[in-house]
Amino acid sequence: MTTDIVCLCTHYDLKALYGEGFARHPSLRLRAPEEVKDPGKIEIAIAFNPPPDAFERFAGLKLLHSVGAGVDGLLKHPGLRPEMTVVRMVNPEQARMMAGFAVWHVVSWHRRLWEYPGQQARRHWDVLDVSAPSTFPVAVLGWGNMGRACGEALAGLGYPITAWAGAAREEAGIPILAGSDGLAEVLAEARVVVNVLPLTAATAGVLDARCFEMMRPDALLVQLGRGGHLVEADLVAVLDAGRPAMAALDVMETEPLPSESPLWAHPRIRVTPHCASESSAEAVADAVAANVVRWQLGEPMTGVVDRSRGY
Amino acid sequence: MTTDIVCLCTHYDLKALYGEGFARHPSLRLRAPEEVKDPGKIEIAIAFNPPPDAFERFAGLKLLHSVGAGVDGLLKHPGLRPEMTVVRMVNPEQARMMAGFAVWHVVSWHRRLWEYPGQQARRHWDVLDVSAPSTFPVAVLGWGNMGRACGEALAGLGYPITAWAGAAREEAGIPILAGSDGLAEVLAEARVVVNVLPLTAATAGVLDARCFEMMRPDALLVQLGRGGHLVEADLVAVLDAGRPAMAALDVMETEPLPSESPLWAHPRIRVTPHCASESSAEAVADAVAANVVRWQLGEPMTGVVDRSRGY
Repeated sequence: MTTDIVCLCTHYDLKALYGEGFARHPSLRLRAPEEVKDPGKIEIAIAFNPPPDAFERFAGLKLLHSVGAGVDGLLKHPGLRPEMTVVRMVNPEQARMMAGFAVWHVVSWHRRLWEYPGQQARRHWDVLDVSAPSTFPVAVLGWGNMGRACGEALAGLGYPITAWAGAAREEAGIPILAGSDGLAEVLAEARVVVNVLPLTAATAGVLDARCFEMMRPDALLVQLGRGGHLVEADLVAVLDAGRPAMAALDVMETEPLPSESPLWAHPRIRVTPHCASESSAEAVADAVAANVVRWQLGEPMTGVVDRSRGY
Repeated sequence: MTTDIVCLCTHYDLKALYGEGFARHPSLRLRAPEEVKDPGKIEIAIAFNPPPDAFERFAGLKLLHSVGAGVDGLLKHPGLRPEMTVVRMVNPEQARMMAGFAVWHVVSWHRRLWEYPGQQARRHWDVLDVSAPSTFPVAVLGWGNMGRACGEALAGLGYPITAWAGAAREEAGIPILAGSDGLAEVLAEARVVVNVLPLTAATAGVLDARCFEMMRPDALLVQLGRGGHLVEADLVAVLDAGRPAMAALDVMETEPLPSESPLWAHPRIRVTPHCASESSAEAVADAVAANVVRWQLGEPMTGVVDRSRGY
């Protein structure tokens, strides 16, 4: 028996993007909305930034599977109905790519690797002074699939990790703090702050002037969460005042970043175009296929969103 | 009882460099050569590029502990005597720093992160096409303390790893090949080749025209071993012919790299000044102190060099 899955997206052709991955799962068939003859019978959709009226034709939708990790946009969709179970993308590949990107920034900053091209251009051979990783603490904001992968990869390279998340706990020797006191404690010593929080009412604007005030003046901010976490004007103001030392931004309030944005040309801001993590067609298809099987069997799926929590 | 250790080095004051670390081990006392009143009683030295006559005054030297990981220079020292046990520096911090540096280069190349500063300068927002880490194999040449740390960190980020070392085996699911057929196999598919081999008669010049011929034309070479592994003229020739795609060199035939070297200005060579890994004073002192205790108890030390093997 073949299960049809409708693809709902404003900008991209998800069927074309992920079709090759779903070829590995012949019991599932991706359909563009216009290919669906009996829309009332469709129970499952994959979605990424769906159009405002995307759900209207599909009155029987029960499982709405995001192909992205963040569902802050999807949860604000005006057509979302109470009976739809929203699931976000959780897969190890996506987390490993995020971890690789975070590690790259931490190592760049800690080892001062951004300074060597200038030395090379001057034919200058000089080892820059760096401390041992064990003396270079890193704060990870967010401790889900992404945060855990970042924290564990960094811990494996010798960096002391503290994390901040919705609930205080300890995992694999890494202290995870919560609340505003916890945030202050996590930020106080960190030489790098990596943000991979989900965007919720509780975390919107968390990277603001108050947050920068709690950070070391020489701490690098690595912003990999959502644009809505960062108050961009506060960042520019604090950088222009000399702290924190630098910021690497992969996500923005408005994407693509408008060409008139002051972030582009700021000497202490590194802009990347929301490329920290992505999932291959195979990884997306495998994650969706595994969840569809679980859903059909009535078993718990991976990545089910608690709408009241927002992730 | 205090054990004196004499510091033997041409260019640096090892006593000053590592004194703070050895303060944690009050039973050991670092001495400059001129401070030693009864040189015949000294049994232990720490060394880094010692002067040619360094060992003459110390007729009772039994344990010669390098403060570097590589001992290729020390083993060629004209004053080395048969009764001296040569030990090289093996410590987890040094390996983790090497791993961080290797990961940085692999992620830079795989994720095309060197291309984004140019996009930022043009205010251009475009995600560059990259494949999943699982489709981006990395070859690690050398599987000691350093190679293992590099391989495990990269494997943790999802990169398939094959290694090449003196003896074929498998460790933690990573195939380790040996011999010239093994080298050809390890190089054939690799998108990045990370060299952390020890420099021995068997490995000198291993990165030569023949090696580049076996590599993918688009493979990055990350040269973190010893300058003597690389035939620099072969590299320049092969890069100028368009392959391999790029090379990151941290070690050179002559260090510091002479200002007239063509490596400095080659558009596809990244030069760093032998900064991939170092050990803090604490890490050096802890490793030496642990070995001195083992040596005094007649137990096996970490990092004992097999002179016939060369590492």
